[in-house]
Formats: sequence, structure tokens, C-alpha cells
Amino acid sequence: MLRIVLDAMGADNGIAPVVDGLLSSLENKNFHALLVGDELLLKPFVDSKHLPNAILQRIQIVHTNDFMQMTESASIANKRVDTSIYQAIQLLKKGEADACVSAGHSGATMSLATLQIGRIPGVSRPAICTCMPTITSNPSIILDAGANTDCKPEYLLDFAIMGFHYAKKVLGYSSPRVGLLSNGEEDSKGNELTKEAFKMLKHYDFFKGNVEGSDIFNGSVDVIVCDGFMGNLVLKASEGVASSIGIILKEQVRKSFFSMFGYLFMKQAFSSLKKKIDYAEYGGAPLLGVKKPVIVSHGKSNARAIECAIYQAVVGCETMVCDIIQEAFNQNK
Amino acid sequence: MLRIVLDAMGADNGIAPVVDGLLSSLENKNFHALLVGDELLLKPFVDSKHLPNAILQRIQIVHTNDFMQMTESASIANKRVDTSIYQAIQLLKKGEADACVSAGHSGATMSLATLQIGRIPGVSRPAICTCMPTITSNPSIILDAGANTDCKPEYLLDFAIMGFHYAKKVLGYSSPRVGLLSNGEEDSKGNELTKEAFKMLKHYDFFKGNVEGSDIFNGSVDVIVCDGFMGNLVLKASEGVASSIGIILKEQVRKSFFSMFGYLFMKQAFSSLKKKIDYAEYGGAPLLGVKKPVIVSHGKSNARAIECAIYQAVVGCETMVCDIIQEAFNQNK
Repeated sequence: MLRIVLDAMGADNGIAPVVDGLLSSLENKNFHALLVGDELLLKPFVDSKHLPNAILQRIQIVHTNDFMQMTESASIANKRVDTSIYQAIQLLKKGEADACVSAGHSGATMSLATLQIGRIPGVSRPAICTCMPTITSNPSIILDAGANTDCKPEYLLDFAIMGFHYAKKVLGYSSPRVGLLSNGEEDSKGNELTKEAFKMLKHYDFFKGNVEGSDIFNGSVDVIVCDGFMGNLVLKASEGVASSIGIILKEQVRKSFFSMFGYLFMKQAFSSLKKKIDYAEYGGAPLLGVKKPVIVSHGKSNARAIECAIYQAVVGCETMVCDIIQEAFNQNK
Repeated sequence: MLRIVLDAMGADNGIAPVVDGLLSSLENKNFHALLVGDELLLKPFVDSKHLPNAILQRIQIVHTNDFMQMTESASIANKRVDTSIYQAIQLLKKGEADACVSAGHSGATMSLATLQIGRIPGVSRPAICTCMPTITSNPSIILDAGANTDCKPEYLLDFAIMGFHYAKKVLGYSSPRVGLLSNGEEDSKGNELTKEAFKMLKHYDFFKGNVEGSDIFNGSVDVIVCDGFMGNLVLKASEGVASSIGIILKEQVRKSFFSMFGYLFMKQAFSSLKKKIDYAEYGGAPLLGVKKPVIVSHGKSNARAIECAIYQAVVGCETMVCDIIQEAFNQNK
């Protein structure tokens, strides 16, 4: 049976959404869960749920005294051997788990995954790969979404190769199209970094050229490649636009009785929209380029987001995405 | 009387939105317009409007044979002396106009403004300054929105100083707050470029530290500073999110009679939202750092966007924003 290790500590809203998300996922998928964190907190919480035996016996609490605070620097993560994320990554490293999910300190998770699990040979830098909603029925993925602030052109090439294989294997796209995030679609567009990366990428069939910020959402490509600084900016700006539109619209609705009346009838449409653009539905973000599946979840994850992140971990194992990436880098780089 | 030169050629939808926007602005503001472009196109179009004399006598058509095509490289703009934008910039340079507005080739406009009008002494690079809607009643401005793809830290400092004075003088904010676009709010966040720029900016009272992509829209700062590559990405991604939300919501509405019914009652709220986030209402984007007011408009500008861009040019002249910037760079840099 598949074994998923879940870091229960350090998320913004405590253990509740993490454990609740785990319980939902255990109802739908048959796997064994290693729940790493403070047993004094976790055990009473799990017990309070009065779970059926069939689920309870698939949860094993692994006690740790310590966890990484969000305010701490990721650079100390590798010395803090008693933290929940350090122990979770150790279980993955020793082969006692098949994949790891954490909504704790994301810098620590990335750092420990890279240092302890190790990079796939040939991969210059692991990258955070985030799913984005599009106006089509297929989401796009963007990488790097934040792991590498300053990149060299060859990193972007590696992100493209990893993203291509992830989209093909995990998302099931038959021939994923990869675009390079730039300030215009013409080949000549770009900054120093992307112009150099473009020269490397143009030799690959999957590469469809430069794309613009709006192409993330219109489905014109499946994989968008950029450095982690840009990826972070674009994700946060996009979240900001979506939430601002919600706030402005609510303000307008409150101003008129007619609008409020209309809003009631549109509620279903709004909730479908919300579901489509809700980050929770896309779960966490895999850290591609390390030897085993590691899923980094948002610190603010609700139970649904944790549940979806666990499904991503399961699919990551089932599709053997790390082996696929390893093979790709063995072969044609 | 104020004299505004308007490049009538090269916009994506031809002369109609440009001239229509001009006519609306002439009804509301008392200025003299120099309309530069093909007289054979412009004169019949203006005549067909049967304008009152009070407006007609404030329009002077300046004939040019040629114009920059959107597909041409900006690098040839300075040799193409018969183009409408070259002639428009010449009128500004020679003092026959007080400000210039163009919805044609933006690269050519920026290049000619810099080469022919010249930079304000002390300004390392001119920057495109774009207004963004926020959830508050005050828009924010972001610069550079696309003029400089690769930047040095000192350029970002200059953008901050120019943005501060623009927000104070033109937007009328009493003490504009300036933020540096980064991948986190902590002082330690950033890429190589922004970390260096942060060190320079922290000596200025107006500087409020690093801001994230979402801060563009939440009103937490008034001026957002970044390089032109990031600015372009963030703007286009934001447009993409807004238009995708519209498309997804329409799809959902079409699926149910109840939603369609509700939509009718909410129409006023949607149109207020649309107006608030419509780029047209924010007009064009001033190119800050050149000696005279130059407004770069979107190639796809509709008449309302051109009208607003002309108002920006008028306010730019009335508030003497170029002189203010010049003074700032004389004094404290």
C-alpha cells in the first residue's frame, strides 16, 4: 500500500485543516498515512473524530517535539533535526514513505527535499510547479513558481523539460505545449535571461515560443516557464486581481436592491466560478527535480487544499513522475 | 492655449477611435489639437462629423505620408523622418506643441521621445507609468510598465523618485507611499536586482519596503516600482485574469435560466465593476523622465481611452510634471 508522509505542523491555521484534509483523502483513496508532529495535539484531535477502524488503522502518528516557524530562515532547516518537516523528509529518504506533503515552512521543505532527498542527476535546480485555471477545461502549469529567485538560462531549460513530462504523465496531456514567459510573443522579445533560454529551448519540439502574462489563463500553452521571482509575482498578482474583483463587485451589489436580488439568482454561477479559480482545488505544488515526490502546500491551505495536495502526491507516485523525469534527463539532455 | 499633438496613425483600429477620442476631449477641455497623419484620411473623417466651428477651429491637421507599422522594429524609428510619430515628436521638440499623445507603435514613441526630446538630466532611464485600479477609491501606479526590459538598481531608484512626484503632483496624493515589487514583504526578500535597489531606496522617507503582486490592487501603496519586464508581465497577467473571470462567469450564466435572470438584475453592478477595471478609463501611460509630456496609449485604445489619454496630457502640462521631476533630480539625487 502507498505510504504518504504528511507534515502536520507549522501551517498558518494549525493542525485542524491538515488533519481534516487527510481524513477526507483517506476516505477516497487507499493509502497509509504517516502524520508527523506533536502527538499531544494530534492524537486527541484524531480521536475526537471517532473514525471507523478502516480509516484509523491507516493513520500512524510519528511524534516530533519541534517544528519550523514561518518566521524562521530556511537556511537553518537542515540543522533543526527534531522538526516535523525534517523528520517527514527523513521518512521519505529512508524509504518508509513514498511521498511527502507539507503546508508548513515552504522554504524549509524545499531546502530539506533538495539537501536530504537530492536532485535528480542532470537537473540544475528543482522547481515549484503550480497549476493554474484557464478558460478551457484544462489547467496550465507554471514553473518555477518560487523556488529559485535568480535563474540561469539552463535552469529554465530544465524547468521546461520537467514541466513537459509532468503535464504529459501526471496531467495526461497527450502532447504538452511549452511556452516561455516573456514581454511579447515575438521571438525577439525577452530580457537577457529569457533571450538566452529561448535559444536553448528552440531546439525542442514541445517549445511553442514566447508567451505573455495573459497566456497563463487562455489555454494557448500547457506549460509556462519562468524564473521563480517572476512566477511568484505573477501568481500573487493574479490572486490579487481575482480577489479585488470579488471585493469591488460585492461593494457594487450592496449599493442596490436590484443587484442584491440578481446576486441571489446568480449564486450558483458565482460558486462554480469560485470553484474553478479556487487554489484549493489545485492542491499543492510539486517540487519537481528531486528524486522523490514532495508536495509543497500553501501555508493558508484549507482542508480541501490539503486533501487535493495528498491526491497529487498519490498521482505523483502512481505515475512515477520522478522516474520519468530521471529518464528524460538521462536520455536527451 | 495649450497645444496637444496627437499621432493619428498606426493604432490597431485605424484613425476612427483616435479622432473620435480627440473630438470628445475637445468638447470638455479648451486646447488646440495638432492631428498628425494622412490628410486624405483625416480630413474627410473630421468633415463627416459636421463639427461646430468652436471645435473645428481648434483642430489643425498636419499631413504626413508615412507611419510606423506595428510590425516594424523601433530601432528604425529615428531614421523614418516622414512618419506621423516622428513629425509629432518634432512638433513637441520645436515647441509648437506642449504634449504628445500616440496610440501607434509604442516602442517608436518611446525611442523618439528619448532621442529627440531627451532625458531629464539625472534620470538614468525614462519609464512607462501605468495607472492600476485598486479596491480603494485611489488607483495605484506601476512603473516601469515596459520601457526597460533589463534594469540596473539605480534605474529602479529613479523610477521611484519619478513615481513619487507623479503621484503627488498629477494624482494629488498628499504623501505617496512607494513600494518595491518583490517576492515577499520581508526586507530580505528579492532577487539580485531588487535587493540592490532596496538598499538604495531605504534612505527615502517615501519608501515603504517590499510589496507583493497582490499589493498592486489593495491600495497598500500608491507607487509600485519594478523593471519593465516584470511590469509588463504583471499587467498582462492581470488583464488575463480579469478577462478570464468574465469569460468563465458568462459560461456559467449561460448554463442556467436562474443565473441569466439574476444577471439582468446585476447588470448595473457589472457595468460599474467594468468601468472601475477598464483600462480605457485610465487613459494612456505617461513616459516619465523625458523633458516634455509624452503619453503612450495602448494600440487597441478605444475612443474613451484616447480621450482619457488626452486629459492626462493636459493635466501633465497643467501640473508641470516634467519640471517637477527635473527639479527633484536637480536637488536631491
